[in-house]
Amino acid sequence: MSNPVLVEVTRGNLVESRHRGAVAVVDHDGATVLALGDVAAPVFPRSAVKALQALVLVESGGAERYGLGDEELALACASHGGEPAHVAGAERMLRAAGLDVAALACGAHWPLHQASAQALARAGGTATALHNNCSGKHAGFLCAACAMAAPTTGYVEAQHPVQREVKAVLEDLSGSAIPDERRAIDGCSVPTWALPLAALARAFARLGTGQGLGPQRAAAAQRLRAACAAKPWFVAGTGRFCTDIMGHFGARAFVKTGAEGVFCGALPELGYGIAVKCDDGQGRAAEAITAALIARLLPLDGGDKEFLARFVRPVVRNWKGTAIGGIRPAEALAMS
Amino acid sequence: MSNPVLVEVTRGNLVESRHRGAVAVVDHDGATVLALGDVAAPVFPRSAVKALQALVLVESGGAERYGLGDEELALACASHGGEPAHVAGAERMLRAAGLDVAALACGAHWPLHQASAQALARAGGTATALHNNCSGKHAGFLCAACAMAAPTTGYVEAQHPVQREVKAVLEDLSGSAIPDERRAIDGCSVPTWALPLAALARAFARLGTGQGLGPQRAAAAQRLRAACAAKPWFVAGTGRFCTDIMGHFGARAFVKTGAEGVFCGALPELGYGIAVKCDDGQGRAAEAITAALIARLLPLDGGDKEFLARFVRPVVRNWKGTAIGGIRPAEALAMS
Repeated sequence: MSNPVLVEVTRGNLVESRHRGAVAVVDHDGATVLALGDVAAPVFPRSAVKALQALVLVESGGAERYGLGDEELALACASHGGEPAHVAGAERMLRAAGLDVAALACGAHWPLHQASAQALARAGGTATALHNNCSGKHAGFLCAACAMAAPTTGYVEAQHPVQREVKAVLEDLSGSAIPDERRAIDGCSVPTWALPLAALARAFARLGTGQGLGPQRAAAAQRLRAACAAKPWFVAGTGRFCTDIMGHFGARAFVKTGAEGVFCGALPELGYGIAVKCDDGQGRAAEAITAALIARLLPLDGGDKEFLARFVRPVVRNWKGTAIGGIRPAEALAMS
Repeated sequence: MSNPVLVEVTRGNLVESRHRGAVAVVDHDGATVLALGDVAAPVFPRSAVKALQALVLVESGGAERYGLGDEELALACASHGGEPAHVAGAERMLRAAGLDVAALACGAHWPLHQASAQALARAGGTATALHNNCSGKHAGFLCAACAMAAPTTGYVEAQHPVQREVKAVLEDLSGSAIPDERRAIDGCSVPTWALPLAALARAFARLGTGQGLGPQRAAAAQRLRAACAAKPWFVAGTGRFCTDIMGHFGARAFVKTGAEGVFCGALPELGYGIAVKCDDGQGRAAEAITAALIARLLPLDGGDKEFLARFVRPVVRNWKGTAIGGIRPAEALAMS
């Protein structure tokens, strides 16, 4: 079975590239609201489940113990651009737990935010693990490990108490047991567990509403949603999709990107969870699909519609700034 | 009709992402050697046809008049990384024709080569049109315009004599008339003309052999092939697929990347031209497909096979350097 074409990229009069994929939208009971393509095949959610992973930070007592506020909790859910305030926030989290950059096992890379990478080079600096887009999540794992009185070394290993608890959280929220053979290693060295899109969407419906969760877990979910809605810049950064969408919709829409074309999200007022996978792994398509789903599902006023249009049908420009084409929902998505 | 899955990207035990696409391999008469997927649909070749565009530079007398050697001719065919010697070469071409960076209409962007971008920032510099990966091609267009006594302003417009001649060259080598509605604007602001993959492959069979071309055009093709084989670093740069492949195979394999998942190439000893389009536009898949085609078609010794293996089945590593998955030909490509 092949997944439908969901997004087309045009240039001049022609479609230049096509993106296939699958979409699951479900409510907190797992009832299907919308299913396109294969929603039963296991998908590595990658960074799209950082908010689920961060539940362990709150539930362990680490967030309270180390005085983490909205900025730090948003960073724990973030794939950030490595802008200076992102780096400072991750460092603050580590310091609160008596740690520093040496404790991070995510590996170093240059800031994803180009101007920040250039500024770092201009200042004679170099990339560290704090610039890694996952440094906030890792700082959160380390705070959780300390709060659990678990060792900080080895915190990325599948057998470490933090990662075991992450797996239990994923299984609880998704309502889906995860066999060990569906574990792989993420870009930042932690385990990533493959789940069907339908199960991921269900997990985000529960994250968004708290329904179906125990009271402590529901409160932790609410705390993380509120932090991301209050400080969306810390979830991604300047000019980034997740930050722009949550900056506009606030608590009405939670969205989070993952590598290889994944998006997860929640629309709490509807009780819906969303999971998207673009077959080929391209983020531009996953973003356009996610924007199209919000445009379709969420009650919008004129300002909301105008805001969303540039994400649902982005104009593509060349280096001179000339509009040369665009990205648009394909028939299977537009008609769904 | 959907194109077959040609490349799979694995993580742990699972296929994480899939790339569909089409492949045409033809000889200089246009006879099919291999066809996978839809080879009749028009495809924007983007930068993959820079060597065809550069024929105009040689045929106009511009290459000789301005004393362009192998490095400059390779740069005219290049999507370079903006490394210092790339920038210096493009500047040299402009200076030879009495021009400077102000004549370039390609737009500015930071060097694609990350270390060069960082070094530029560290030195307090900023991106110019010379760093644009297409600056060598544009410098070549400007040299051609000067040699043709055509205006240098407007050299990127479809009605300019240089671009009209580029279109005539594309039609001659591909054996395929191009309707005006198949023109769009490339990332660097020049026209890009959509052609079926089969026609693109035929053009590269002719570029690779000279057969089917007039004597002047065949000599120009030979001159450009020799320049790229002699100076492959100037066609792309450090750590780049085109440079590595041509650096190993020399004149036995010409390969050139284009944006949105296109690759064109020639295997002159076999008389074959190759054209590849990955449906979703991802370069990683187009590279793996191109490497797999070379591995399948070209007579190889043990050293060649060992060299090619890391391009046909690249290992994917995370930020810590841990091998977490790989890229591999899917059944439709491996079996073809």
